[in-house]
Amino acid sequence: MEEHHRQRPKQDLLVSDIGEAGLIARITQALGAPPPGETWGGDDAAVIAAPGELLLYTTDMLVAGVDFDLAWCSGVDVGWKSVAVNVSDIAAMGGRASHALVGLGLQPNLPVSIVDDLVAGVTEAAGLYGVGLAGGDITRSEELTVSVAMIGAPAAGRAALRSGALPGEAICVTGSLGGASAGLRLLTAGVVDDRSTGPVARVVARQLRPRARAEEGVALARAGVSAMIDVSDGLLADLGHLLDASGAGCDLDPELIPVDPDISGAGAARGEELDPLSLALTGGEDFELLFTMKTAAQGPEAVQSTRIGTVTPSGRRLGDRPLADWKEGGWDHLADP
Amino acid sequence: MEEHHRQRPKQDLLVSDIGEAGLIARITQALGAPPPGETWGGDDAAVIAAPGELLLYTTDMLVAGVDFDLAWCSGVDVGWKSVAVNVSDIAAMGGRASHALVGLGLQPNLPVSIVDDLVAGVTEAAGLYGVGLAGGDITRSEELTVSVAMIGAPAAGRAALRSGALPGEAICVTGSLGGASAGLRLLTAGVVDDRSTGPVARVVARQLRPRARAEEGVALARAGVSAMIDVSDGLLADLGHLLDASGAGCDLDPELIPVDPDISGAGAARGEELDPLSLALTGGEDFELLFTMKTAAQGPEAVQSTRIGTVTPSGRRLGDRPLADWKEGGWDHLADP
Repeated sequence: MEEHHRQRPKQDLLVSDIGEAGLIARITQALGAPPPGETWGGDDAAVIAAPGELLLYTTDMLVAGVDFDLAWCSGVDVGWKSVAVNVSDIAAMGGRASHALVGLGLQPNLPVSIVDDLVAGVTEAAGLYGVGLAGGDITRSEELTVSVAMIGAPAAGRAALRSGALPGEAICVTGSLGGASAGLRLLTAGVVDDRSTGPVARVVARQLRPRARAEEGVALARAGVSAMIDVSDGLLADLGHLLDASGAGCDLDPELIPVDPDISGAGAARGEELDPLSLALTGGEDFELLFTMKTAAQGPEAVQSTRIGTVTPSGRRLGDRPLADWKEGGWDHLADP
Repeated sequence: MEEHHRQRPKQDLLVSDIGEAGLIARITQALGAPPPGETWGGDDAAVIAAPGELLLYTTDMLVAGVDFDLAWCSGVDVGWKSVAVNVSDIAAMGGRASHALVGLGLQPNLPVSIVDDLVAGVTEAAGLYGVGLAGGDITRSEELTVSVAMIGAPAAGRAALRSGALPGEAICVTGSLGGASAGLRLLTAGVVDDRSTGPVARVVARQLRPRARAEEGVALARAGVSAMIDVSDGLLADLGHLLDASGAGCDLDPELIPVDPDISGAGAARGEELDPLSLALTGGEDFELLFTMKTAAQGPEAVQSTRIGTVTPSGRRLGDRPLADWKEGGWDHLADP
């Protein structure tokens, strides 16, 4: 966690000092070599082998001041997350990610060391998830902007859509929820430092270095889940998306929501009031997989998940209250507050 | 050309009024329906049929104030261009573009009508080039940012790289050069109005609604060009990229450079000093295709192109002067001016 609050080095080389050509040369060095038959970078487009007859194709744009803030995270964190969130999208379709392109919008007065950090984070995450960095684009921007596009392929022959949930099926979610938004609360409150350990360090890591459920997505698709989505906007919001696409309702048990066990301890350690259940229901960016499957079906043993309720024909309830009462909505970048 | 100076309507609906969910619903309506077996938008990732066993994969990010300015172009222009520049990259590889993703960074106080215009431009260009709009991402940004990622496939079985030029081969370029940067000069000088016609309107259109040489790229790849690149940074800069990749030199004839015939007339009509040859050599964004091929080979009849010189083993000359003397370099977003 030692990089979260790294200060910008003084007398640093700036982006404007080396220009676009210098940056491209620097970044190209950091990327891996393509397999035979592929051409990455250095041409008008990358040439890559199609990872399957069906492709999964997604993009996510992260903007400084909106999706992250270099006041409380490092360039490595930003690079890491820009890859992980796209891998998560591919995983939520039951696929494996294969190739990414990275578009960067950079301020001329940005230290090159931040770009180096960003590329290091991108490279590290791409290596972990087996994703080839095939190319990208650099332009100028007033705010640091990272736009990653990713290609993958369904691992089970077909994609796991949001739209297949049927009444009577179990609603399940991997891992635990709320930790990433608890981490964000502590970071934006300015109560995290380099020496944070234990639950504080763990919820902060969930925010800054989210793990995509890459293997779990593949295993769940092979096990025949009927619908799947990743929890990026928040459990209730993303469940809403899944149920909307499926034309279904739900009956959830609040006792069964897998609240991140570190939230209470992290809040207590930093004197911040964190409501674990509320964060688990509406906090985004946990990147767990939310899925539905026949109740008779056996989930894959390799995937640790929790059944939180049942798909119903209509109506959406959490315990004895309508879902909407629990502050459904999640994260909307653009709506009025 | 009537849209170039459209004013923002008063009392306009703002992006913050309808939020991310409202925008997504609005944009989804404007996109076409996918072919059977594909799923566009509305899920974690798009599901698309691979357009070939080898894929071409590229991305370009356009940022307001850097790559365009809504003071002198419309949202339709921006949307159009964001698609056309990516189609041009695929064409320069000898490929056909098949699917795009569009990432948007929007200010909360941006009128929704600008987003509608942008989507209309994206849709219009995608329709012209036969590109499916498979999905995208929306986030908040202080400056309007459009990041398009595009997939295609080589039309002639293999991609036309920058690296295949051999000494003795002809260096050729499609169409004419310098018009797009002449248009940019007039637009930024504020001497273009809605009633512009003739050469002024034509150079402005080259800047605002560039045409990708989509069919020409495919025809040239089939005719067996040895190397190809699109002229986005400027003829000398892009030729430099091609020669660097090929480890070769050139001998160009300045008399043969196909200068856009509208530059002189456009400059004269608006009292702006425009040097046609200089703009043709260093002005970017014409999106013509620059290629090399055996001198004995017959270029495809369908492609109008001009031979401007010959590949040499080393040394780069234009007439009797080194290429560098002609202000090589082209457009660098990030270098010090």
